[in-house]
Amino acid sequence: MSNPILVEVLRGALVESRHSGAVAVVDADGGRVLALGDVEQPVYPRSAVKALQAFPLIESGAADRFGLGPEALALACASHSGEPEHVATAMRMLALAGLDASALECGAHWPIHQPSAHALARAGGTAGAIHNNCSGKHAGFLCVACAMDAAPTHYVDAAHPVQRLVRATLEDVIGAVLSQDVCATDGCSAPTWAMPLVALARGFARFGTGLGLTPGRAKAAARLLEACAAQAWHVAGTGRFCTEVMQRFGARVFVKTGAEGVYCAALPEQGLGIALKCDDGAGRAAEVTLAATLARFLPKDTDRAALERFVRPTLSNWNGIAVGSIRPTDALTLY
Amino acid sequence: MSNPILVEVLRGALVESRHSGAVAVVDADGGRVLALGDVEQPVYPRSAVKALQAFPLIESGAADRFGLGPEALALACASHSGEPEHVATAMRMLALAGLDASALECGAHWPIHQPSAHALARAGGTAGAIHNNCSGKHAGFLCVACAMDAAPTHYVDAAHPVQRLVRATLEDVIGAVLSQDVCATDGCSAPTWAMPLVALARGFARFGTGLGLTPGRAKAAARLLEACAAQAWHVAGTGRFCTEVMQRFGARVFVKTGAEGVYCAALPEQGLGIALKCDDGAGRAAEVTLAATLARFLPKDTDRAALERFVRPTLSNWNGIAVGSIRPTDALTLY
Repeated sequence: MSNPILVEVLRGALVESRHSGAVAVVDADGGRVLALGDVEQPVYPRSAVKALQAFPLIESGAADRFGLGPEALALACASHSGEPEHVATAMRMLALAGLDASALECGAHWPIHQPSAHALARAGGTAGAIHNNCSGKHAGFLCVACAMDAAPTHYVDAAHPVQRLVRATLEDVIGAVLSQDVCATDGCSAPTWAMPLVALARGFARFGTGLGLTPGRAKAAARLLEACAAQAWHVAGTGRFCTEVMQRFGARVFVKTGAEGVYCAALPEQGLGIALKCDDGAGRAAEVTLAATLARFLPKDTDRAALERFVRPTLSNWNGIAVGSIRPTDALTLY
Repeated sequence: MSNPILVEVLRGALVESRHSGAVAVVDADGGRVLALGDVEQPVYPRSAVKALQAFPLIESGAADRFGLGPEALALACASHSGEPEHVATAMRMLALAGLDASALECGAHWPIHQPSAHALARAGGTAGAIHNNCSGKHAGFLCVACAMDAAPTHYVDAAHPVQRLVRATLEDVIGAVLSQDVCATDGCSAPTWAMPLVALARGFARFGTGLGLTPGRAKAAARLLEACAAQAWHVAGTGRFCTEVMQRFGARVFVKTGAEGVYCAALPEQGLGIALKCDDGAGRAAEVTLAATLARFLPKDTDRAALERFVRPTLSNWNGIAVGSIRPTDALTLY
């Protein structure tokens, strides 16, 4: 089955590249408000599901025991850019649990934020696990391990108590079983379980509303949602889509990117969850697809114009000359 | 019209992402040996056509007048990684023409080669036009301008004598007219003209064989081809596909990447030119598509096994754990 082309990239007068994909918008019961393309397809949610992976951080009592504030909770849900304050928050989370960066099992990479990477190099530093965009999530996993009195080692193994807890939590929130044969390894070595796109969307409808969750889980969701809205910079970083959208719309919109063209979102006031996957894994197309979907589902009295530069971004070259643009297709905007 | 899926990206047991595209393999007369997908579609060749843009560097007499050796000629055809020796060669080219880096109009970016970028930062340097992957092509344009006694300014404008010469040369080599309405601006601000994929492939069949070119143009092609084969590191850089393939196969295979999923190649001994475009612009898919196409058309007694790691690359995560792979589909390998 072939998914529709959702996004076009223009250069000069011609379409230079095209991206196809699928979009699911559902309510907390799984009722479908929009289904573009194959929304039953299993997708690895990758980092888009970090907020759901962070439920145990609240529910295990780790957040309270270690005194994690909104910045730390937002960073646990983040794919951060490795800017100095992201790194400092991750270090603080580890220190509060009595650990340091050597406990991280996410692997090292240079900060995504280029000026921070160059500043690090200029200062004689090098890439570490603490700069990994997942270091906040991993610091969160380690806090959970400590709160559970589980070993703070091999915590990325699917059989470790932390990951068993994460998996059971995901299954409850999305309302689907995650079997071992759809378990793969993420970029940061944590397990990632493929799940139907509609189930992923339902998980975010529940995350945004608390509907369909136990009272305790609904409270945890609200606390994570509030933290991400208040500390949107900690969820991504300077100039990033997730940060800019949540800074603009506050708790009315939760958005989170994942690798390979996945994006998830929650619109709490509308009671909706959104999950989308670009077939080819392109982040630029996932962003435009999400922006167009948000613009469609946000109420008319919202400042939807603020989304326009994300719906139709201009492409500039190395001299800052506008050379093209990215735009949603009619398949995405006219339904 | 929908192009076939040519490449799949696997994570664990599942296909995570998919790439569609078109491939044209033709001889110097334009005779089609392979046509997958829409090979008539106009594509911006972007950097894949740099070797053809470099003909005027030979034909204008600039290469001889300024004493450009194989390294400089290869760099003029390159999307280089900005490693120190690439930068040094670009500086030498400019100096031989009596110019310096301030004459470059390609815009600044940090070296593509991450260790070189970090070394530059560590040494207190910053991104310059000389580090732009196109600085060799631009140094070549400037050498042509000087040899033509044209102004070494605004040389990226389509109306400048250098670009008029480049355009006329491209039209001759590919055997198609390039009209103003298919002219766009490249990342480095030079003009890029959309051309049918089959015409682009034919241009590379002619480039590789000299067939269909005037004797002088055929000599220029042979000189550029020889320079790129001898100085393959200068065409791309450490660990890059173009460099590794040409280092392995020498003058038997010419390959050149372009932005947005374009790849061109010449197989001089087989008399073939190859041009391909991945619909979504993904470089990873273009590489696998080209590697699979080369493996198909290189004779059986060639060391085709050397291509295998490019045909089916392993994907590793930040801890070096193999998490997946990329592979060509049957649509690409069974025809």
